[in-house]
Amino acid sequence: MISTPERATTLQARRLGIDTRQEPIIYLRADSPVCRSEGFSALSRVLVHTEHCKIIATLNIITGEMLRRGQIGFSESAWLRLQLNNDDNVWLSHPKPVQSLSHVRAKVYGHTLNKQQFQEIINDIVAGRYADVHIASFITACGDDKLSDTEIIALTRAMIDSGSRIDWGQPMVIDKHCVGGLPGNRTTPIVVSILAASGLTMPKTSSRAITSPAGTADTMETMTEVSLSLEQMKQVVKQEGACLAWGGSVRLSPSDDILIQVERALDIDSEGQLIASVLSKKIAAGATHVLIDIPVGPTAKVRTQQAAEKLTASFMTVGEQLGIKIQILYTDGTQPVGNGIGPALEAKDVMAVLQNEPHAPQDLKQRALTMAATMLEMAGVVDAGCGLEKATIVLESGLAWKKFVAICIAQGGMKQPGEAPYRFKLMADKEGRVTQVDNRRLAQVAKLAGAPIDPTAGLVIHVKVGQQVQLHDPLLTIHAESSGELNYAVEYLESHPDIISLNTEESGVENHSD
Amino acid sequence: MISTPERATTLQARRLGIDTRQEPIIYLRADSPVCRSEGFSALSRVLVHTEHCKIIATLNIITGEMLRRGQIGFSESAWLRLQLNNDDNVWLSHPKPVQSLSHVRAKVYGHTLNKQQFQEIINDIVAGRYADVHIASFITACGDDKLSDTEIIALTRAMIDSGSRIDWGQPMVIDKHCVGGLPGNRTTPIVVSILAASGLTMPKTSSRAITSPAGTADTMETMTEVSLSLEQMKQVVKQEGACLAWGGSVRLSPSDDILIQVERALDIDSEGQLIASVLSKKIAAGATHVLIDIPVGPTAKVRTQQAAEKLTASFMTVGEQLGIKIQILYTDGTQPVGNGIGPALEAKDVMAVLQNEPHAPQDLKQRALTMAATMLEMAGVVDAGCGLEKATIVLESGLAWKKFVAICIAQGGMKQPGEAPYRFKLMADKEGRVTQVDNRRLAQVAKLAGAPIDPTAGLVIHVKVGQQVQLHDPLLTIHAESSGELNYAVEYLESHPDIISLNTEESGVENHSD
Repeated sequence: MISTPERATTLQARRLGIDTRQEPIIYLRADSPVCRSEGFSALSRVLVHTEHCKIIATLNIITGEMLRRGQIGFSESAWLRLQLNNDDNVWLSHPKPVQSLSHVRAKVYGHTLNKQQFQEIINDIVAGRYADVHIASFITACGDDKLSDTEIIALTRAMIDSGSRIDWGQPMVIDKHCVGGLPGNRTTPIVVSILAASGLTMPKTSSRAITSPAGTADTMETMTEVSLSLEQMKQVVKQEGACLAWGGSVRLSPSDDILIQVERALDIDSEGQLIASVLSKKIAAGATHVLIDIPVGPTAKVRTQQAAEKLTASFMTVGEQLGIKIQILYTDGTQPVGNGIGPALEAKDVMAVLQNEPHAPQDLKQRALTMAATMLEMAGVVDAGCGLEKATIVLESGLAWKKFVAICIAQGGMKQPGEAPYRFKLMADKEGRVTQVDNRRLAQVAKLAGAPIDPTAGLVIHVKVGQQVQLHDPLLTIHAESSGELNYAVEYLESHPDIISLNTEESGVENHSD
Repeated sequence: MISTPERATTLQARRLGIDTRQEPIIYLRADSPVCRSEGFSALSRVLVHTEHCKIIATLNIITGEMLRRGQIGFSESAWLRLQLNNDDNVWLSHPKPVQSLSHVRAKVYGHTLNKQQFQEIINDIVAGRYADVHIASFITACGDDKLSDTEIIALTRAMIDSGSRIDWGQPMVIDKHCVGGLPGNRTTPIVVSILAASGLTMPKTSSRAITSPAGTADTMETMTEVSLSLEQMKQVVKQEGACLAWGGSVRLSPSDDILIQVERALDIDSEGQLIASVLSKKIAAGATHVLIDIPVGPTAKVRTQQAAEKLTASFMTVGEQLGIKIQILYTDGTQPVGNGIGPALEAKDVMAVLQNEPHAPQDLKQRALTMAATMLEMAGVVDAGCGLEKATIVLESGLAWKKFVAICIAQGGMKQPGEAPYRFKLMADKEGRVTQVDNRRLAQVAKLAGAPIDPTAGLVIHVKVGQQVQLHDPLLTIHAESSGELNYAVEYLESHPDIISLNTEESGVENHSD
């Protein structure tokens, strides 16, 4: 017989609607001729071609009847990257080795990487050429303190250069970042209002919650519009000197969003990755002066003063080399800030502080004033030591509230945060003194109640560490939008009676309708 | 309202028939109430309960209509671990953190791990509690030379203890292992036959091919039964002193199979993992004396003499501590061994050598004799320096062939390897001298032709490095079971004309029907 080479088999695309996050997955029947001829098996890396473009994807083999013969299934990330329509023609082949993986291996073998090598790694990650296991390997190889300050600088630059960068046309643009881990720590809207009312430029973009009960963007969304385009943001900032928008619609440091997904799964602390993550986002967002808030406490992300100081030293060195001014502020990370946890409940705390209401949470107010004061001094608006007086005047005079309202109106209008219909109040069943509050478990209760997807869900905490409570005093109230979610949260609360610890062994829980 | 906690939502199981290898994946609709109430999102780690057992799985979110409301989909690995039937009831909750991940983090932070810590990691991996990203992180943290010999010993012991261990009731049990990378290197059936005919005990279990065109088990399967239970193996070994079986039906060092999947994706060399992988399998298989064959060459796995010697030093130290006798043999890794590549084609080479046929490949024969000689001396059957003579006598007298036939019959009967109907012969279009053969690409041609799934597929190579060829001399012949697969292999061959390099620039390809 005479053999004449033919083109590779054509397959018909099918959208399966499976969300696998960033990793593109394709699905092929076990009896596909291409599996046999190309030697593809489960987890093979495959080059997928369409008429217009190509990507590398990971293969899952279908042993059931989900696909017809000749079909190829796609996860959402693969489908969207290839911009496919159902029944489009698709071809498969073996991908060339991803060259930048040799840099990851070099890092594993203890070598130092340069800017060009980090850039190739980051570009391949953004282009989807790394499977999640490759990203996990990269993060692990950079874990602990395996990146020198020079490498952190190179990685940060590479991350900035992989996305857009905003130019605000201002000599000084200020920003702030909190090194996570403290529920209810919603100082940002207050700080931005005080600083913008003081004449500074602060175009604040924030994230939605990923693992927490609320992000600043979720909280702001209960009071105004936050999904602004870059053009809309620029208009608001030109008019009011500040914005309080969601950062997701501008493509700043896109590799950061991918790395964070895998970092969370691994839970490996990497000082280098943390600094590169924070500073790449801030520099891409056009900031020149950044305040880093590091809450320190046993259930916060940074647990000791020593760890905080080590982090500070690297932040300062890297910031200086990248031409951005950094100021670090250590804050109390032992208990939640404010009363509410959840988007609308935190918004109410923010509004109470801005409107100088008598019941406004004083801890939230003091934290916001301390931060605003530090930034006023950092920006040279007032002399050293005079920041707190200035910030207090701007807040208590109502100027900050006026600025907040103006920003909300410029972003599309102001509205009142809603109220959840279902409540459950946890009462003290003994008198005693509050000795400890478990931040992580409180956050879990708020999430079980529906936060942040249900904007009015969450909880209000009625006590602070050190406070004396009497029998039947309320400790916290859960808010929920459905009875099912309320039940989830209550069940969790009851199985963890030490979320709020009292200095008596008999402290406990009593149910009251509400 | 009064809230009474309810049980978590019940979901109905559905087998989706998706092969994701070892990682258990579950699939939930985006609008599942449990996603909202528990805060699960794509890639969340979820504890899955049935009436009888529970596992940790990774979540993929379904945005399409693949599942009805109230259903939960399962990958094959999740389905088989939970032993489910369609419509079985399933409940989900948040898993407790996997404690042994803290040991992985400790390794990232540069700490030394002990036996207990490796044991907890390995047990969790075998129990499916690690996602692939966690396994990737563990492999990376142990990469390069980050494991001390003491840690390699601890890891090897942990891997042995995670599975079964065979006791053959013999003071000396011999085995061999080849540190991969050389197509056609099918010495094992010959070596086993010579040694068993010399009175040694050699219960050989082999793997099927994973990335290569044939494993020893695939080759043996073209001549006899290889899927033996442990009891059957013991019977064959009792009768004949040896077996040549597939190792997959005995659960030896099960963590090794899982780690290898992810190691392959990462392509990170880890001396420690390699040694632990090889020795855990051999010790679990009951071996007391092991010959390690390390082919060295530019396209083999070990590329330099220096790398081979470093590996040897660790192998010897670890083997001594684990009470197993190790002998290392460096062999030529520059070109394939024998003529055939593919299960049946390699079987024909093996039979030709054992039957002392005049056309039998001499390189395969010499390698097998060298190995058998080394092991005869190692086992004390003959004095040092007399092994080759003894091995040659056993082979050339026909005793080895007789033993091979007896083993095959004891395993269930002997058969002849088949013949593939489709062929393609690559001819030299010039005269010249063969300067180089690309092992990796030759293996790829054999796989495209259908090996190892099609047992008769593969290729026969007609020339050796250094050989002078004339115009139209055959260089190699591709064998395939279908014309489509033949075409794939030919197309690849034609796009890589330097797979067999001749010392003339005009060497090339000419098609002949056959």
